[in-house]
Amino acid sequence: MAVTIKDIAKEAGVSVSAVSLVLNNRPCRISEEKRKQIREIAQRHHYAPNQAARSLVTKESRMLAFILPDIENVFFSSLAKRIEDCCRREGYMLLIANSNDQYEQDKVLLRNISARGVDGIFIIVSNESYRYKSKLIQELQNLPIPYVMVDRVYEQFVCDKVLYDNEQGAYLAVQHLQENGHTRIGCVVNTASNNGRLRLQGYKRALKEKGIKFDPRYVAQGDYHFESGYQAAQELLKTDITAAFVSNDMMAMGFLKKLYECGLTVPQQFSLVGYDNSLSPFILGVDLTSVAQDPQRLGEEACQLLFTRLKDSQAPAKMVCLPPQLIVRNSVGKME
Amino acid sequence: MAVTIKDIAKEAGVSVSAVSLVLNNRPCRISEEKRKQIREIAQRHHYAPNQAARSLVTKESRMLAFILPDIENVFFSSLAKRIEDCCRREGYMLLIANSNDQYEQDKVLLRNISARGVDGIFIIVSNESYRYKSKLIQELQNLPIPYVMVDRVYEQFVCDKVLYDNEQGAYLAVQHLQENGHTRIGCVVNTASNNGRLRLQGYKRALKEKGIKFDPRYVAQGDYHFESGYQAAQELLKTDITAAFVSNDMMAMGFLKKLYECGLTVPQQFSLVGYDNSLSPFILGVDLTSVAQDPQRLGEEACQLLFTRLKDSQAPAKMVCLPPQLIVRNSVGKME
Repeated sequence: MAVTIKDIAKEAGVSVSAVSLVLNNRPCRISEEKRKQIREIAQRHHYAPNQAARSLVTKESRMLAFILPDIENVFFSSLAKRIEDCCRREGYMLLIANSNDQYEQDKVLLRNISARGVDGIFIIVSNESYRYKSKLIQELQNLPIPYVMVDRVYEQFVCDKVLYDNEQGAYLAVQHLQENGHTRIGCVVNTASNNGRLRLQGYKRALKEKGIKFDPRYVAQGDYHFESGYQAAQELLKTDITAAFVSNDMMAMGFLKKLYECGLTVPQQFSLVGYDNSLSPFILGVDLTSVAQDPQRLGEEACQLLFTRLKDSQAPAKMVCLPPQLIVRNSVGKME
Repeated sequence: MAVTIKDIAKEAGVSVSAVSLVLNNRPCRISEEKRKQIREIAQRHHYAPNQAARSLVTKESRMLAFILPDIENVFFSSLAKRIEDCCRREGYMLLIANSNDQYEQDKVLLRNISARGVDGIFIIVSNESYRYKSKLIQELQNLPIPYVMVDRVYEQFVCDKVLYDNEQGAYLAVQHLQENGHTRIGCVVNTASNNGRLRLQGYKRALKEKGIKFDPRYVAQGDYHFESGYQAAQELLKTDITAAFVSNDMMAMGFLKKLYECGLTVPQQFSLVGYDNSLSPFILGVDLTSVAQDPQRLGEEACQLLFTRLKDSQAPAKMVCLPPQLIVRNSVGKME
């Protein structure tokens, strides 16, 4: 039978409330020695507080939730793992929920998860939720608990948020191709996504700085999945491009597959830069140059924001914009 | 302000309990026309029941949870997505929690998640939990809600469970290599995992049937991650093997990378079979023959078991063992 807080109190010779205060790390006048003894007894008996009952008292569940758009995307699953590690270190459990990149799911998950009494929420909103911006902002503002927007944020909306600078990341990628002599540079981008639109802006800025006219024939749509990168390559390889900036690594893999099928070698005959720096170990023979958005860093910043907010609900909202980093490998070659 | 069940009752001209019965799909004597009207009003006002309050009444949260060992493993994240799709179709939300392949986390997550009032749990236990079998069984039996063991199960423990036949999968893989004339076949396997031990058994059975003596030098340990496949290749390529069965695709990718670095082409100079059939689109130039465990099928069976159990807590426990399938591609060549 499971041990109760009463059993522990009895064994330690203290009151039930003393045990509760110690196990919940609350300030109290109990000697360090006694505290140690209480914790030791609890541990020995594998004492687990009834969470529902516990949260009625402490108003804390020690559970956080992370709503994300696509659990199968390596960048997001890796980020989830980093956030979870960070939460565990602070004594929080993390629940993960997949919105399937749908606004309706963002809404339903926010409502239902907060109603289950978690202490706070990390959210990467669906791309659809950029179309329902004011509605989703309403949902966020109605939340009875703290939240942090991660990776995909509403620029004008004031709340705790952390993201990588997407415009700058794309700019670095294209600039690197230009520095290697490329002028006809393809771009595979997902303009259905806000971050995708920002990456397209970065691409355009790099062109503009070199006085190169933007050519829409060099831009192909993708949806961040492997197959769309393959399709985009099919389309763009009909033009005279010598290089491409592909705005995530999953699509870059698809693009590479097409290059491989066409017998084009990288970087001898074609140069390529990806985004996310998430797949490099998986690619054989090609070491993909890619824009790194370290999930570790993003996860830690997100946790820091939420932990701070949990301690002080009145602190001013904070926005953290992280600089992406170009990781140069061998997938970009010099144009003669 | 959010609309309440009272507002809906007033607008529809019915009692509060009538609205509750209709929106919860409970049997009641209310005309189809009136039901439709009530649903329409609720929808129009974006009525969202307070889940905590709702579960006090219905005893249902319409939330299920899925505890899995490694969210970054493509097989598990893909399975999570399939289970989530299936849950959503049945009106359930799915919360996902990562155990980090640790027994302690399995225990803590089971206790805390069930204490948060979800309706049921899917669990892929950590590999560690095979060492703490009787303890984890105790935890499962103490759960106040239904659960289904998925993919990794305790053979003797009677409960709802669904898995793929791991021994048979490995057998099929090795048999295929043998049919192509290979006799010196390496094996990369994770014997820290129960499924890994079963796969090793399948490997041994295939050898035995052909009267080939088992040679421990041909077996290398892996931990299902990319890097360990690379290391295993380094070790096994010192022997005289002509082919290898690598017991998951992540490790097979690592193995391939080493082959590539050694200048060995697949399948001309070396033959390879993987497991999971999860990465084939990502591998360039090599189409990996692999043992498929369709996550879709596994997810659907798991959901079916849990949905059935939620309706009938007294039904006899069911075990579903699914047959794996060898997907033959071009990574296996004929030995002369």
